Amino acid sequence: MTTEVLHDLEHSIPGVAFATESAVLSQYSRDQGPVQELIEPLAVVWPESVADVQGVLRWASRSNTAVVPRGAGTGVSGGAHATRNCIILSLEKMNRILDIRPDDELAVVEPGVINADLNEAAKPFGLMYAPDPASYRFSTLGGNVATNAGGLRCAKYGVTRDSVLALDVVLADGTLIHTGHQTFKGVAGYDLTGLFTGSEGTLGVVVGITVRLRYLPADVRTVAAFFPDFRTAAAGVLAVGAARVQPAIMELLDGATMEALDGAHGSDLRTRGGALLLIQTDGFGAEAEAAAVRAVLSELGGTVSSEGSAEAERLVELRRHSRGDDVEHEIRVGEDIAVPRSQLVHYVAELERMAADHDVRLKVVAHAGDGNLHPTFWIDAAEGAAGTARLNAALDESITVALRMGGTITGEHGVGQFKLRWLPQEQQSEVLELQRRIKAVFDPAGILNPGKAI
Amino acid sequence: MTTEVLHDLEHSIPGVAFATESAVLSQYSRDQGPVQELIEPLAVVWPESVADVQGVLRWASRSNTAVVPRGAGTGVSGGAHATRNCIILSLEKMNRILDIRPDDELAVVEPGVINADLNEAAKPFGLMYAPDPASYRFSTLGGNVATNAGGLRCAKYGVTRDSVLALDVVLADGTLIHTGHQTFKGVAGYDLTGLFTGSEGTLGVVVGITVRLRYLPADVRTVAAFFPDFRTAAAGVLAVGAARVQPAIMELLDGATMEALDGAHGSDLRTRGGALLLIQTDGFGAEAEAAAVRAVLSELGGTVSSEGSAEAERLVELRRHSRGDDVEHEIRVGEDIAVPRSQLVHYVAELERMAADHDVRLKVVAHAGDGNLHPTFWIDAAEGAAGTARLNAALDESITVALRMGGTITGEHGVGQFKLRWLPQEQQSEVLELQRRIKAVFDPAGILNPGKAI
Repeated sequence: MTTEVLHDLEHSIPGVAFATESAVLSQYSRDQGPVQELIEPLAVVWPESVADVQGVLRWASRSNTAVVPRGAGTGVSGGAHATRNCIILSLEKMNRILDIRPDDELAVVEPGVINADLNEAAKPFGLMYAPDPASYRFSTLGGNVATNAGGLRCAKYGVTRDSVLALDVVLADGTLIHTGHQTFKGVAGYDLTGLFTGSEGTLGVVVGITVRLRYLPADVRTVAAFFPDFRTAAAGVLAVGAARVQPAIMELLDGATMEALDGAHGSDLRTRGGALLLIQTDGFGAEAEAAAVRAVLSELGGTVSSEGSAEAERLVELRRHSRGDDVEHEIRVGEDIAVPRSQLVHYVAELERMAADHDVRLKVVAHAGDGNLHPTFWIDAAEGAAGTARLNAALDESITVALRMGGTITGEHGVGQFKLRWLPQEQQSEVLELQRRIKAVFDPAGILNPGKAI
Repeated sequence: MTTEVLHDLEHSIPGVAFATESAVLSQYSRDQGPVQELIEPLAVVWPESVADVQGVLRWASRSNTAVVPRGAGTGVSGGAHATRNCIILSLEKMNRILDIRPDDELAVVEPGVINADLNEAAKPFGLMYAPDPASYRFSTLGGNVATNAGGLRCAKYGVTRDSVLALDVVLADGTLIHTGHQTFKGVAGYDLTGLFTGSEGTLGVVVGITVRLRYLPADVRTVAAFFPDFRTAAAGVLAVGAARVQPAIMELLDGATMEALDGAHGSDLRTRGGALLLIQTDGFGAEAEAAAVRAVLSELGGTVSSEGSAEAERLVELRRHSRGDDVEHEIRVGEDIAVPRSQLVHYVAELERMAADHDVRLKVVAHAGDGNLHPTFWIDAAEGAAGTARLNAALDESITVALRMGGTITGEHGVGQFKLRWLPQEQQSEVLELQRRIKAVFDPAGILNPGKAI
């Protein structure tokens, strides 16, 4: 039957590249999220046009085949993991920047455009695309939209949703719709653009994206401040707020993260303190803001780096690339909790207690400006099933405690497949049911990325 | 039958204030939008708690009675106009600020809280609620959420949706749900918070709102620049963008608006130019940004007011309060178009042509930073039906032309009842149908604010 289905696919979308070779299927079977059960797709298809995507979805509706849309596969929640009897719809060949309109301060792109490539293209006009997930050099804008990706600059510039003005979306039955507007503001009808953003490909396949661009900052200043411990560094976050400075970037690293960076890059961060606060200000007020930041952090006992902006910027780059430091003999799970800002310090204290209770290792980085934490728990792979059980117990408890503090299970990575088990702890059953019914409006047969997001 | 229904209502929600007196019904029969057919509601009810609202909606579901939720009634699209056999659900008594959490930079409010009152309460903490519709001294946050209200500060700080983190909503059947998160970021599940924001009370009744607060700017500078005509002033808008300055406020007034202000306030604006650009910068870089603004506008031939910031600020206040200048012997209709920024000047040229073609009067103000224009067309009331026909022809053409330029029929006021006739010009039938089906998920019997928004 499988062969028959694929034969039908090939005939339905003549000329569209597709593959069924085992090596390819294996490569496209997962994203960078934890895998609970590795499943190979039936095929991978690479549409190159909106019409191609419509053809694939018409075929999928007719044959009742599950479709897993995929950008660069850099997601970390399993949103692009293959599910049983699915095809992978890779948007990576739809990677043209269709338009940059400097006076309108917007760009129109295909979903496969790499985040960093759009920024390169916008730079000559003095513009930038603000949302900057750690994967910005690899991840696609389609994937960014699917997960409503965050990044380092979110506290000031907002998340992906705040930069998306309009979408072209192919629905499960192949219908092409247009949502939103080519203007910064617009309130005609329901906010379908926002509904698609972050829906992880479960409501439709995004084939065109209009984004707002922002001004490249006239000036950028970076401050690094070392603190004896996480508690004092977290107090620094609140003090910067009390000084009414809105940094573009405000990253908080714990001692274990500093040790890991030292190990990887030969730096000496850990000898200089037990926690590091990296703050970047930008725009016409960057220097005045940096001065205010240095003043309040020094007053709190922080050691403000005397190396100047360049060295601090190097630290921000180190931080940006600290993602995904896989170690062969360890099992690591990264998380994506967000808590109200005032709870940062209490939550990290709780994380440290949990790590001790469950005998697992821990390091924490936080986008401190918006209370979004990325703790990583890990064990030695040699510890086997008992170790994994302790790891999972720590994970589960970290979720429960975050929710008790008024937090969320995912600040920016998405629910995907991996976090589905925690969603009912955050959302009441009525809300879960409403989402299932919204899903049914868009995709009655349930062929779009089943088992993800809701 | 009507008496029976009301008797049942009174018994279903004992202790909840309600009125059926003709004077009250008349007062609550409409908002500030144009009225096509004046309809009196059956009753007005004033719930004081979430439980009261649930009681009203359970009763309304049982009796299949239409419910029109209402804040302060300052909307201008007829979103709160009474419809046939409806009750008005006034949220004005649910006006408590429940919590201001300075370190978390958020506030939790009931829907009846006045926008300006929240700002007063936030001020002692160095914080503000950014979205500032012209009605901010009267309009409620519930109404702001229902319309996804904009305002003067949107280009920099975003619209209402960008400040709403979480909602408590009572659904048509009386179920209370919670959407969103108490954190700046959060991507668990679909964005129901965004879906409710701007849905004009057609999906549920908002009974609790968590908003993000922003820092009160450390400094504010205001620049007023007079230009010979609208064309050169609009060029100034693009020049400020090219200088990479993001003003907090950027208002553009045409000559007719200046004349109207002169008439009302005894000023001499019109003698000083044919168009006025008012720009406010804020934050640590305010002075540097204002200097950059003055430089680029002078270079373009603008006469930058030498009166300094105080006089320019007085002009911003005049502009803020230029709304709703009803004149007894005239019929006026204000609009709320948004176009891509580069089209501002072309669109205003087209408006002037239309006004001449259809022999109607015209004045225009624009939130120029985000391309949102408020043209007002008017005729003398004595012109009767023929005048009204010309007025409507001008309105219709202004919509068609805006859409042709890539614009939207409503930047911030909402569709309500008045703009429904234009919605199918902006949105394809598939999108309209999807919205009707989403509405049916939340409100299958269609009792919530029927005939509005979609």
